[in-house]
Amino acid sequence: MKSVHVELGKRSYDIIIARGLLSRAGDLFEERQIGKRLFLVATTKVFDLHGVAFREHLIGNGYQVTEIFIPDGEKFKNLHTVENIYTYLIAQRADRASTIVAFGGGVTGDIAGFVAATFLRGIPYVQVPTTLLSQVDSSVGGKTGVNHPHGKNMIGVFHQPNLVCADTTTLSTLSQREFRSGVYEVLKYGLIRDAQFFRYLEANLDGLLERDPEILETVVCRACAIKAEVISIDETESGLRRILNFGHTFGHALEVVSGYHGVTHGEAVACGMLAASLISAKLGHIDLETHERVARLIRRVGILPDVQEYAVEDLLEAMDRDKKRRDDRKVFVLLAAIGETVVRDDLEDSFVADVWRALFFGAQRRSEAS
Amino acid sequence: MKSVHVELGKRSYDIIIARGLLSRAGDLFEERQIGKRLFLVATTKVFDLHGVAFREHLIGNGYQVTEIFIPDGEKFKNLHTVENIYTYLIAQRADRASTIVAFGGGVTGDIAGFVAATFLRGIPYVQVPTTLLSQVDSSVGGKTGVNHPHGKNMIGVFHQPNLVCADTTTLSTLSQREFRSGVYEVLKYGLIRDAQFFRYLEANLDGLLERDPEILETVVCRACAIKAEVISIDETESGLRRILNFGHTFGHALEVVSGYHGVTHGEAVACGMLAASLISAKLGHIDLETHERVARLIRRVGILPDVQEYAVEDLLEAMDRDKKRRDDRKVFVLLAAIGETVVRDDLEDSFVADVWRALFFGAQRRSEAS
Repeated sequence: MKSVHVELGKRSYDIIIARGLLSRAGDLFEERQIGKRLFLVATTKVFDLHGVAFREHLIGNGYQVTEIFIPDGEKFKNLHTVENIYTYLIAQRADRASTIVAFGGGVTGDIAGFVAATFLRGIPYVQVPTTLLSQVDSSVGGKTGVNHPHGKNMIGVFHQPNLVCADTTTLSTLSQREFRSGVYEVLKYGLIRDAQFFRYLEANLDGLLERDPEILETVVCRACAIKAEVISIDETESGLRRILNFGHTFGHALEVVSGYHGVTHGEAVACGMLAASLISAKLGHIDLETHERVARLIRRVGILPDVQEYAVEDLLEAMDRDKKRRDDRKVFVLLAAIGETVVRDDLEDSFVADVWRALFFGAQRRSEAS
Repeated sequence: MKSVHVELGKRSYDIIIARGLLSRAGDLFEERQIGKRLFLVATTKVFDLHGVAFREHLIGNGYQVTEIFIPDGEKFKNLHTVENIYTYLIAQRADRASTIVAFGGGVTGDIAGFVAATFLRGIPYVQVPTTLLSQVDSSVGGKTGVNHPHGKNMIGVFHQPNLVCADTTTLSTLSQREFRSGVYEVLKYGLIRDAQFFRYLEANLDGLLERDPEILETVVCRACAIKAEVISIDETESGLRRILNFGHTFGHALEVVSGYHGVTHGEAVACGMLAASLISAKLGHIDLETHERVARLIRRVGILPDVQEYAVEDLLEAMDRDKKRRDDRKVFVLLAAIGETVVRDDLEDSFVADVWRALFFGAQRRSEAS
């Protein structure tokens, strides 16, 4: 059992990472004085896979567990689902001593976290992420929220969980594509903050892709530790936390332009990281060999979707509409070295577009020609 | 111009209180680096009374002001109104540098504050309360939220404003009943925390009820200072902040049982304070003379609505359903002296019911007999 402490003063909490954690979580809940009344928010799909035993274990440890099932999919991540959960909680007379357990992937965590943040002006919640992406990213840091019909994640608050329990055993049921999507976010942590971790990933990528239990535990733990360190320094994204957006300027734009179909979040970030890395090299922040080393590791994870159908002009426009924009400038997190970042907001659109085309249009043309 | 500082570390802010403040707010906004893009949330009623000049003043000071009108009344304090505001903000491309200005009474402040708390995971907001109740209570402390069809204020978060501007001139347009409703909350502050302020109110109640500008400024300032001190010590109602609920255990129950019709919030709190004071005397926390002195001042504000139609059993049941309940006990904030409180959670329902009946049923019977 590994553990990462997220230091945020009164809002501090632990992330526990272990194989088979779901059948041992009762003690952890006890130690952290989680109340006895739990509302477990999950999709039936995830609940059927991993929730039944978890519930039995908790009941056996004296917890009262009530399931709240939500429909599966990003399109249900909206205020309507949130309102239905409120209604259920009120009907069940949930109070401030009740605890929400977010049991599933990122969408479930975002919805359940937002409910916990806004029900009765905030009640405790525990994140139990069951996907690689949510274990290394969305379950840590307190970002909660839902989509508005006119924009993704437009509605939300920062609300830190009281505990995060990441059972790496649950990752065995992910599809290969879903799993790889999380691996890209893992690579990000090495790239932005930890050269040694990057080397570890170079050495152990095959084992990771085969979901070797030992490697999985190590990787999830290290990724969480880096994220925990960053958000301890900057809880609400005013400074350092921006580096977590490495690859995300292009990534988000790609997701928007693709209408969130055809490209997973991790794949979009992977494309974005490739672009950010090449931009870093073109601007002289890193040398070309370093970029190639970065690109090699990203490419080893799997084949990225063909993104040629998305015009780079549309991507740039989507960046302009990004909610994180504070003024007219696009902000890019770039590499100063493997494990080190530099932020630039002075890039010309035409330069950025050329890099993107060289990477994804040029490469395709080359492969067509070969 | 008076000012009260609310010390909450990084979330600290000032409350500015003055006559004619609305035509001088530009400088204050400037000093506190409020962004140039303002979204003013108001009802057309309040905007027509006080908003037009305020907007002109802000525009004259280089601010871009966009009005967002919301329907008037507590029944529109719901997620639907909130969602409409989100839609408007997105359409107008509001971003994290935009500021929400909550312009109106408590309902407007609660809704606009909740939007500010949850749009893009939180954007700045300024409270410009225009009623006595909101100037001394709801605009300070960061409570934001809306009602759920099954419960009042069930949905909400704590989100501190960046600035509160209370222009006491706006209080001149309140109805007498609305104004008196705020006066009851003012009395509360003297009772729970400041014997000297209580004596000031005894000496100046007539002037206050006549809305003497000087007295108004003094009273709003002192009430805000007491509230600011309490929430600085306890931001999220885990300890000391509970004393602000003096009179509110019965008050909330009375509002619930009356269906929020016929009894204003202030009147309900006044009834609750009378009950809490008499309970305090019956339990020996204060002597009967002190209770009578408290009751006299409360009664001087105006005639309270007849509450005999509400069965005390229903009030007790409503208390049990109160969201603040953490377990099976009802919590009463009582007086240990004028200016001092004691919290009790060990009172018998029958005792509490007897006190209520003696106050509001007995008194009525006596007056009928006389």
